[in-house]
Amino acid sequence: MISVDEAVQRITHGFAALPAETVALTDALGRVLARDAAATLDHPPAPMSAMDGYAVRTDDARIGAELAVIGEAPAGRPFAGRVGSGQAVRIFTGGVVPEGADAVVIQEDADAHDKMVRIKEAPARSENVRERGLDFRTGDVLLERGRRISSRDVALLAAGDFAQVEVTRKPRVAIIATGDELTRPGEPRAPGGIVASSTYAIQAMVRDWGGDAVDLGIVPDREEEFARLPAQTRGMDLIVTLGGASVGDHDLIQSALKPHGFTLDFWKIAMRPGKPLIFGRLNATPLIGLPGNPVSAMVCAILFVRPALSAMLGAPYASPVRTARLGSALKANGKRQDYVRARLSVSNGVLTAEPFRLQDSSMQKVFARAEALIIRRIDAPPAAEGDQVEVLLLDS
Amino acid sequence: MISVDEAVQRITHGFAALPAETVALTDALGRVLARDAAATLDHPPAPMSAMDGYAVRTDDARIGAELAVIGEAPAGRPFAGRVGSGQAVRIFTGGVVPEGADAVVIQEDADAHDKMVRIKEAPARSENVRERGLDFRTGDVLLERGRRISSRDVALLAAGDFAQVEVTRKPRVAIIATGDELTRPGEPRAPGGIVASSTYAIQAMVRDWGGDAVDLGIVPDREEEFARLPAQTRGMDLIVTLGGASVGDHDLIQSALKPHGFTLDFWKIAMRPGKPLIFGRLNATPLIGLPGNPVSAMVCAILFVRPALSAMLGAPYASPVRTARLGSALKANGKRQDYVRARLSVSNGVLTAEPFRLQDSSMQKVFARAEALIIRRIDAPPAAEGDQVEVLLLDS
Repeated sequence: MISVDEAVQRITHGFAALPAETVALTDALGRVLARDAAATLDHPPAPMSAMDGYAVRTDDARIGAELAVIGEAPAGRPFAGRVGSGQAVRIFTGGVVPEGADAVVIQEDADAHDKMVRIKEAPARSENVRERGLDFRTGDVLLERGRRISSRDVALLAAGDFAQVEVTRKPRVAIIATGDELTRPGEPRAPGGIVASSTYAIQAMVRDWGGDAVDLGIVPDREEEFARLPAQTRGMDLIVTLGGASVGDHDLIQSALKPHGFTLDFWKIAMRPGKPLIFGRLNATPLIGLPGNPVSAMVCAILFVRPALSAMLGAPYASPVRTARLGSALKANGKRQDYVRARLSVSNGVLTAEPFRLQDSSMQKVFARAEALIIRRIDAPPAAEGDQVEVLLLDS
Repeated sequence: MISVDEAVQRITHGFAALPAETVALTDALGRVLARDAAATLDHPPAPMSAMDGYAVRTDDARIGAELAVIGEAPAGRPFAGRVGSGQAVRIFTGGVVPEGADAVVIQEDADAHDKMVRIKEAPARSENVRERGLDFRTGDVLLERGRRISSRDVALLAAGDFAQVEVTRKPRVAIIATGDELTRPGEPRAPGGIVASSTYAIQAMVRDWGGDAVDLGIVPDREEEFARLPAQTRGMDLIVTLGGASVGDHDLIQSALKPHGFTLDFWKIAMRPGKPLIFGRLNATPLIGLPGNPVSAMVCAILFVRPALSAMLGAPYASPVRTARLGSALKANGKRQDYVRARLSVSNGVLTAEPFRLQDSSMQKVFARAEALIIRRIDAPPAAEGDQVEVLLLDS
């Protein structure tokens, strides 16, 4: 058995960033930038007014001064001339501050009458003016390669004049469940039969994490059923199997796939829930074999499939591990790293993780309600209420 | 001007949950449940073994006992008979514990030879047995109406035999930007022209929050351009306008839409960035008018459009406001509720919000990098480093 950390290392080293593809900005949300996005313009493109008011020369705009209003500068329609001595231009938020002017007097601080304006408060130089390039300048890196694009990033990319962006291609993940006991939801079940739930969970997780999931179905526990896998998974970036790691006295997945080109990297991890995790390759394609138990499969997917997807997306892996205070005592831990299902709360700026009383790995209802997993290291001593613990956030 | 809290109240009261529709479980991720999802089966469906080993009667299985192995119970293939006195059944994880047996001895605690097994550790009653319905029972509500479905929820729904689920229809949101200065990314710009970025940001946000966004384009600042809006927005659940709330000396949106059936609920909110927010109806369709400044538009969308979407989705609005410690001092606040862009960090279980030095609402680069908004109430006194502050989390 190897440690969780070593397993993550060995798995992520098995993947490289996939090639780039170009998508429209409207399809960029949630995708990962394949290159730095550098601005091709200054923003704002010219000095602009932050308020509605009058563009003036600070040297002229003393209290009581009367200035001639020689034109207008609404947003998008710059005033063509120049503000000379004793002159002002009516300006609106987002309007270009005309040449000659160096400040904007807000309209509340001015009295307009006929074609004149009387200054009631003298502005400082640059007051209410957003200088050209205040937000960003041509060549500035707006967002870095490897960043997962948020809705606010979409705004920034639009402002930077990106109609499309280069993003990493989505990893294609094939998912195969194994088990004689499994059926699909809504289908007839034999006695002792169980609805396959991991398949649906891992599909959803892969999509959440930026991949495309392909459901290759439920395979019975018979070696000959696996012969079709190499052909079915051609062109995939990752194969995820569910169950079959210890069927009866042997490992079905390994023995069934070995004749078809499977090579093992490692098997079994010192963790709970989990343990029978397989990592290897089916010919050229990496394969992660998750446990059959749905909660174990989901925890292992979070720990091992997610970093593999991050590596393929070229995104630095954002560890979902934080520190929190423990809500109630936990016993000493044994020889496997334990992932304790817990609720999270924040009070007075302090994060508290409250473990569920029941932790059986068959309990999917508890797992769906959990918000974090408290990480208990191998041989960890008992932990008291209020102790600091590591927590893995489930819905980042 | 009204307060932010009053505005949220008035807006959310203007929306009701949309009708339900049925989607396949594979399309359920991120959707909102329209009804409680109650289990139609017990899970597990029968007592099941949590381990590989031998199903035994605890009365017989004393240390040193020799039991006759009368059959096998792998997952999905229950043993048809009954375990009698002096008998055991070879069982595997997920196998149904046969009638007569009441515990499972793990294989490490048993010596098998020929058709006999010798018990090395006596089990307690029910040891390694998952009772029928341990996870959930028929009729149990697995997930409640209004819940946004996570990947772990997908697993639970599958386990509960849901091949499809009833979810709230996605709200259809029409987005219209206004402004003579605006162009689309990649298009030629006139001097002083700006790329319309809010349109793309609000589209992405609406999708993130569970709605469908329809881009109705960029409308110049002329009243006659708005005449087509009532026809274009028929069948929409919400209209979002961007900009046009104070063009020159008047409110373009209101004056342009009034002849076409617009009725105002309120206008202007005591907040920064923001302020010129419009809420009303264009005939039957609710309309939220966001400010033209992109950062202001995004902050207002988070504050006002998001709860409107939650209300239409029938989802209890999950406030993204938490408490944190302030990373560095802030000045006293004035007469508008302020939303200060900040970075977040967690250390020793304590959440800290560090305000950016530059807070100008034109700075989209800063806003894209922000992780939270520190909420400064009207007339809030100066705040010192380490003080407790309210923060609005930007990426939930």
